[in-house]
Amino acid sequence: MIVFFTSEIENNFGYLIEDELHHCSNVLRKKVGDDLFVTDGHGHLFNTKIVEASKKLLKFEIKDKTYFNPPEIKNCIALSPPKSADRLEFFVEKAIECGILKIILFYSSRSERNRINKTRLDKIAISAMKQSRQYHLAKIDILDTFDKAIIASYPYDQKFIAHLNNKSQLLKSIYNSDKSAFIFIGPEGDFTNDEISVALEKEFTEVTLGNSVLRTETAGIYAAVIIS
Amino acid sequence: MIVFFTSEIENNFGYLIEDELHHCSNVLRKKVGDDLFVTDGHGHLFNTKIVEASKKLLKFEIKDKTYFNPPEIKNCIALSPPKSADRLEFFVEKAIECGILKIILFYSSRSERNRINKTRLDKIAISAMKQSRQYHLAKIDILDTFDKAIIASYPYDQKFIAHLNNKSQLLKSIYNSDKSAFIFIGPEGDFTNDEISVALEKEFTEVTLGNSVLRTETAGIYAAVIIS
Repeated sequence: MIVFFTSEIENNFGYLIEDELHHCSNVLRKKVGDDLFVTDGHGHLFNTKIVEASKKLLKFEIKDKTYFNPPEIKNCIALSPPKSADRLEFFVEKAIECGILKIILFYSSRSERNRINKTRLDKIAISAMKQSRQYHLAKIDILDTFDKAIIASYPYDQKFIAHLNNKSQLLKSIYNSDKSAFIFIGPEGDFTNDEISVALEKEFTEVTLGNSVLRTETAGIYAAVIIS
Repeated sequence: MIVFFTSEIENNFGYLIEDELHHCSNVLRKKVGDDLFVTDGHGHLFNTKIVEASKKLLKFEIKDKTYFNPPEIKNCIALSPPKSADRLEFFVEKAIECGILKIILFYSSRSERNRINKTRLDKIAISAMKQSRQYHLAKIDILDTFDKAIIASYPYDQKFIAHLNNKSQLLKSIYNSDKSAFIFIGPEGDFTNDEISVALEKEFTEVTLGNSVLRTETAGIYAAVIIS
């Protein structure tokens, strides 16, 4: 079943635009009268029929809809982005496939500051949602300081900081799946001692992800698997 | 600490060749008399000194060595390779970073048969081992039939087959970390019913990796995290 995404829905009608339009019209050659499954990324799966199709947009009418509840427990992975855009994109795709609905990309003291292509990451989020047959779109936030990321952790029940120079407990062993979790994954050069101290003051628990030293994006995917 | 890999060690001397030589000589500009850490991928970390350096090879003398035991429990992920070489390579890198030492790439009925660049995968295995500061090199085997992969599963205590059309138990919940495990991850089009029946006859347990539908390489990485 192919599902399209749009945020353009009003009353009983909606539109596909840009990539989704292209995929629907040019690749799959759908035309007026054809059935179409569409999600709004807010839990709805719409069963629709195409009523208008042009090069600029494709209009559909909603016939019926199903609502899928979001996961009861909401988790967040806050990751200092790796230098390589490919590796960052791979992390985003894999974390979302595993069911993570909130990703924070933050810059800490030792982060390498590369331009993040947010538009592209949002497209990857849509594609990963569709690919893994989920109907809730993940939110990706970019925060320019560690302190802002700390503030973003306030709503979560469990707060973890994964870093290298510690003999902490395994995330696997202490994560409680009945409570929401926020996990900090640092840059390749790790968090500074000051950052770790700040996190500990804010009731973060230090964790390790295992014996081997993981790349940032691997650590992010690892955390996504454990808390998914 | 930068560690180089070589399989060319005899008595107290060894050689770096090809990529490792290039990295050591041309990128890091190491020269005769410099210290060098080297692993053989069989658990040894050698502390060495460069005694000869040319364009074709770099010879070192071993000063002392440390041996790291391999993990007591050995696991294997058997995955039907995804079409995209990038995605396959990403799986190999991530699985090895997580500590998997045996990867089987097998073709089943619904596998898309692309040429696998084994040489490149072996290089990725070396690089992932070094990156994650492990000293045992993972082995990657390519098997051309599902039946051969079944035979390869014989030595393992726990045998799992992850597939889509079942309401099986979560791998997370039933995996026993005290015993060795072999996990089958099927192609994008999933295993055929016949293949699943064969696996069940051979005492495989059907498992699911969670609620969302994962791409092949994501499923492989997911399994690697769980059994690592």
